[in-house]
Amino acid sequence: MQPANTARLTISCPDKRGIVAAVSQFLHNHGANIIDSDQHSTDPEGGQFFMRMEFHLDGLDLAREPFERAFAAVVAEPFGMDWHLWYSDRPKRMAILVSQYDHCFLDLLWRRRRGELGVEIPMIISNHEAMRRDAEGFGVPFHVIPVTRDTKPQAEAEALALLKGQVDFVVLARYMQILSGDFLREVGVPVINIHHSFLPAFIGANPYRAAFKRGVKLVGATAHYVTEELDAGPIIEQDVARVTHRETPETLMRLGRDVERQVLARAVKAHVEDRVLVHGNKTMVF
Amino acid sequence: MQPANTARLTISCPDKRGIVAAVSQFLHNHGANIIDSDQHSTDPEGGQFFMRMEFHLDGLDLAREPFERAFAAVVAEPFGMDWHLWYSDRPKRMAILVSQYDHCFLDLLWRRRRGELGVEIPMIISNHEAMRRDAEGFGVPFHVIPVTRDTKPQAEAEALALLKGQVDFVVLARYMQILSGDFLREVGVPVINIHHSFLPAFIGANPYRAAFKRGVKLVGATAHYVTEELDAGPIIEQDVARVTHRETPETLMRLGRDVERQVLARAVKAHVEDRVLVHGNKTMVF
Amino acid sequence: MQPANTARLTISCPDKRGIVAAVSQFLHNHGANIIDSDQHSTDPEGGQFFMRMEFHLDGLDLAREPFERAFAAVVAEPFGMDWHLWYSDRPKRMAILVSQYDHCFLDLLWRRRRGELGVEIPMIISNHEAMRRDAEGFGVPFHVIPVTRDTKPQAEAEALALLKGQVDFVVLARYMQILSGDFLREVGVPVINIHHSFLPAFIGANPYRAAFKRGVKLVGATAHYVTEELDAGPIIEQDVARVTHRETPETLMRLGRDVERQVLARAVKAHVEDRVLVHGNKTMVF
Amino acid sequence: MQPANTARLTISCPDKRGIVAAVSQFLHNHGANIIDSDQHSTDPEGGQFFMRMEFHLDGLDLAREPFERAFAAVVAEPFGMDWHLWYSDRPKRMAILVSQYDHCFLDLLWRRRRGELGVEIPMIISNHEAMRRDAEGFGVPFHVIPVTRDTKPQAEAEALALLKGQVDFVVLARYMQILSGDFLREVGVPVINIHHSFLPAFIGANPYRAAFKRGVKLVGATAHYVTEELDAGPIIEQDVARVTHRETPETLMRLGRDVERQVLARAVKAHVEDRVLVHGNKTMVF
Repeated sequence: MQPANTARLTISCPDKRGIVAAVSQFLHNHGANIIDSDQHSTDPEGGQFFMRMEFHLDGLDLAREPFERAFAAVVAEPFGMDWHLWYSDRPKRMAILVSQYDHCFLDLLWRRRRGELGVEIPMIISNHEAMRRDAEGFGVPFHVIPVTRDTKPQAEAEALALLKGQVDFVVLARYMQILSGDFLREVGVPVINIHHSFLPAFIGANPYRAAFKRGVKLVGATAHYVTEELDAGPIIEQDVARVTHRETPETLMRLGRDVERQVLARAVKAHVEDRVLVHGNKTMVF
Repeated sequence: MQPANTARLTISCPDKRGIVAAVSQFLHNHGANIIDSDQHSTDPEGGQFFMRMEFHLDGLDLAREPFERAFAAVVAEPFGMDWHLWYSDRPKRMAILVSQYDHCFLDLLWRRRRGELGVEIPMIISNHEAMRRDAEGFGVPFHVIPVTRDTKPQAEAEALALLKGQVDFVVLARYMQILSGDFLREVGVPVINIHHSFLPAFIGANPYRAAFKRGVKLVGATAHYVTEELDAGPIIEQDVARVTHRETPETLMRLGRDVERQVLARAVKAHVEDRVLVHGNKTMVF
Repeated sequence: MQPANTARLTISCPDKRGIVAAVSQFLHNHGANIIDSDQHSTDPEGGQFFMRMEFHLDGLDLAREPFERAFAAVVAEPFGMDWHLWYSDRPKRMAILVSQYDHCFLDLLWRRRRGELGVEIPMIISNHEAMRRDAEGFGVPFHVIPVTRDTKPQAEAEALALLKGQVDFVVLARYMQILSGDFLREVGVPVINIHHSFLPAFIGANPYRAAFKRGVKLVGATAHYVTEELDAGPIIEQDVARVTHRETPETLMRLGRDVERQVLARAVKAHVEDRVLVHGNKTMVF
Repeated sequence: MQPANTARLTISCPDKRGIVAAVSQFLHNHGANIIDSDQHSTDPEGGQFFMRMEFHLDGLDLAREPFERAFAAVVAEPFGMDWHLWYSDRPKRMAILVSQYDHCFLDLLWRRRRGELGVEIPMIISNHEAMRRDAEGFGVPFHVIPVTRDTKPQAEAEALALLKGQVDFVVLARYMQILSGDFLREVGVPVINIHHSFLPAFIGANPYRAAFKRGVKLVGATAHYVTEELDAGPIIEQDVARVTHRETPETLMRLGRDVERQVLARAVKAHVEDRVLVHGNKTMVF
C-alpha cells in the first residue's frame, strides 16, 4: 500500500517566520517533490512549530546521508529544529507486549498480514503462554517472560535484552503489567498503550465495573504514549460506543473490546506513518 | 405529535414471578390496549423490577380515579410497587433555569415551539437579565432572581415560591449556580442538569480548559438528575464530538455546546415521555 | 455468556387487545419467569403485533414439548400467531460462505472462539481455497465449491446438499456470488449478507470506487437478510465511518472493512439472540 | 473569534515540483507569517494541486493591491494558478433562502448572533411569510418573493436583483424550490444546499417516507454545492443519526432535522473559512 520511494520529515522548533519557506525551498532545490504537508503552531508569537512533510525521493540529487547532513546544516540548525527523516522503504519494527486478552493482539496481526499497517513485527513478548499458538500461526517469534512481584526487575531486564536496538516502537496490546520508569528510559523507543477507558474517566484496575456502577451511556477507549506517570501520557486517539442499562459488566467489556481494538489500530497506523508529534503531554495527529 | 388519549404507567418493585401477567391482565380486563411495553430487572432472583407500559385510554371501563384506585388495590399493593400514571392530555410543566449561555435554553424553546417536546413552560428563572428578550419573544414569563454568596438562601426561597406546585420538573439549561440540598428536597420534583463534560471526566468548573490541557480527541456532555452530591446524580444521556489538536479552549467550548444542547434535548424528551426510571444512582432509559 | 436455561419466544400476529395479557398469564401459570420483554405494533388499530419474550425455564411445570403444545392451543391459535420458541441450551448452527476477503470471516470466527456469539459453526463453504488455513486453524470444516457461470446451478446444488438440515442460518461473509431464488427457497433458513455500502447508496459491483468518485464524506455498510431481489432485503444493521478527500479507493475499502465487520457481527449477534423480527421488507430489532 | 488581521490564500493548479517552495518563499519575502497550511494533490504525477494557506498580515511590506499584483506576476502566472485571497477583516456576506421549515434557518441565525460563523447576513429571501418574525427578531432584512409554476422566472429575476453583487454566497436553508441553471449562472456566487438525506440515497421529494419504507437504521443529511444537475453537486459534509423500527415518518423527520442543521452549520463554517476547494464534482475540505 505504501508507495515505495517516499520520505517523511517531521520537525519541531520554536515558531518564527520563514520556516515553511526554508524547508520547502531546500526540498525543492534538491529535487524532492512534496506530496503532503501539515503544520501546526501552538502560537505564531513565541509558540512551538510542528510540521510533517512527505515527499518523493525519485528526483533527489543527493544520496540519503549527504542529503540529511545538508538539511541539518542548511535548515535544521539555523532554526533550532528537532527533526527526523523516515524512509518508506524501511518499515518500522513493532514489538507487541500482550498478556491474556487476545482482541487487540489479533487485530494488529491481521491488519499487518493484510498489509494495512506497513510494519514488521520482529517479536511478541508475553507474561503468559496463552497467545503462543496465535503468534506462531502468524509466523512471529513469541517470547514468554513471566512476571511476579519479586521477579519484575529481572523480567524487565530480559525484555530489554530482546527489545533494545531491535524495534522502533512497542505496543502494549492489553499488557497487564506496569512498566517501570527505568524500563521506559532504557528501551529508548515510543511505547503505545491502549487504556480500556475513555481517559481521564475511570482510571484504574476495573473501569468496566466502575462504568457499570456509574450507569454510563457510553464506554470508551484511549490510546496513548506511555510515560512514567500511569495513564497520563499524551493521548493519540479515543473513541466511544453507546451502551444501555441492559449491559452487565461483562457485556460492557465485550463492547469495550471492539472500541479498544479500533482505537489501538488507528493509533498504531498514525504512529507508523509518522503522523503523531508530541508536545509536552499533548499530541498533534496530522 | 403525541396521540391525545394514552397513559403511561411506570412501575418499580422487587422482582418476582407474575408481575407482567398481573399488570397486563389488569389493563386488559379494564379495556386498556397496550401499545408499548418495556421492562428491566436488575436480577431475576432478588433484584428490582422496572416497567413502563403505554396504553390507549379509549376503551377504558372506568374513570381515571377509580381506575387508579383499582390498580393500587389489585396490583400495586400486592407486589409492593412504586408506580405512577401519566396522561398524555396533561403535558408536563417544565421550568427552565438559565444563566448567561443561551444555546441549551434556545434549543429547548425552539423544540417546544415546534411541538417536539410535548411540554408546557410556565416559567423561566435566571440570575441574569441577559435572556429576557429571547424568553419573552417565545411568550414565556421570565423571572430574574440575582444570586450572590450572601443572598443565596433568600434567592433559593424566592425560586421555590415560584416553582412549588407549579411545575413537574426543572431543567438547568446551563444554570451556573449550585443548588442546595434543601432546595432540592423542597422543590419536590426532578431537576435535570446538563454537565458540560463527559462525566466522570473533568468534573468541575472549567472542563473545556481541562480538556484542552489534556489534549483529548473527544469532548462530551452528560445530562443527569441533580442530587446533593455535585455532578454525581443518575446519568440520563451522554454523547461526544470529535476534536483535534487544532482546537483552542474556545473552539472546544463551541463544539461542546453543540453536544450539550443535543444531549439535554434528548434527556428532556426521554423524561417527558416517562422513559427514564431511576434505581439508586443509575437510570433505565426505555 | 448465555445463561444456560432460558427460552426466547417470538410472536407475530394481527394486533388486538389482550395479547400481552394472554401470553404473560400463560407463562406465569406454567412457572416461567419473564426476564425480558419487547413488543412493537405497526398500528394499534389493525396493524401487526410483534413480541419477543425471554424467560427462565427452571420453574416450568411441563416438559418442552407439552409446553409448546399447550401454548399453541391456549394462546397462539386463538390469536392467529406466527411464533417460535428457541432454547438457550441449543445454540444456533451458523454456516459461513466466504470468497477471498478475510475480514468479516475472521471476525466471526474469532468472536465465536471468545464465546461472544453463542453459535456453533458446523461448516464453512468457499468458492476459493484461500481461507482454508484460517478455517482449519479455528477447527471448522472447510468445503471448497468452485463456481463458474456454467457450473453455478451444480455448485448451488452441492452447497445445498451440505447445508440442508445442518444449519439454522447462513452468513455471507463477503461471498461474491449471487445466490439464486431457487437456492434461497431450498435452503429454508435465513441468509444474512453484509453489503459493502450504506444501502440504498451505491448498489452494485464496486461501491468504493463509486463513493470515491462521488466524493462522499462517509462510507458505510449494511447487513440485511437476502431476498431474491438483489440488495433489497430487510435491513438488520447499518453503520458508517467518516472519510476525507485524502482517501483513495483503496483506503476507502480499508476503512469500509472495519465498518463491515462490526456491522455484520452486530447483525449476527442480534439474529442469534432472536432479536430480529421481519415484517414485509423491514425488521424490528429488539 | 476570527483574529483580525489574517488572510487566506487558496490555490488550484496543475501539480508540479516547487509550488510550495515558490508560494512560501514569496510570502516570507514579503513579511507574511504562515500560521496554517494544507495541501492536496490528486496525483503528484500530472494531477491537480490544491493549497490553502493562512497567514498574518501584520508584517506585510506591501499594501494589499500591490501584494496581490506581485503574487499574480511572480507566482500565480508561472504556475498557471487559479487563486483567491480572502481577508479576515472583510467577513463574507451570506444570503439565506428559506421556505417553511425553521430549524436550519434559526440555527444559522443563532450561530451568527453568537459570533460562531464570522459572516454578515444582508438578507433573507423566502417564498413564504412564515419566517418574517424570526428574521426580523434577529435584525435581518426579510424579503418575500412568492413562487408559483407560472411566476418562477420572474421570481428568480426578483431574487437576482436583490442578490447580485450584494452577497458572497447563498445558503438554501430548506428552500423548497429548485433553482434554474440560469439563476445559478447569473447569481455568480456559490450556493450551498442541505439535502435532507444521506446522498446518494433517497434522492427526491420525500426521503423520510422512503427511509421509513426501507426500514433503514440510520438517517442522514448532506450539504453540497448546488449545480444544475439536481442533488448531484460536490458534497461538503455529511452525517447520520441512528434510528430504530419505532420511528414513524414524523419522528424520522424530527431526528433528521437535528442532523440537517448540524451538517449545514459545519458546511457553512468550512465555506466561510475558505476550507472547501472544489475539483470537478468533489471537494477538498481542509
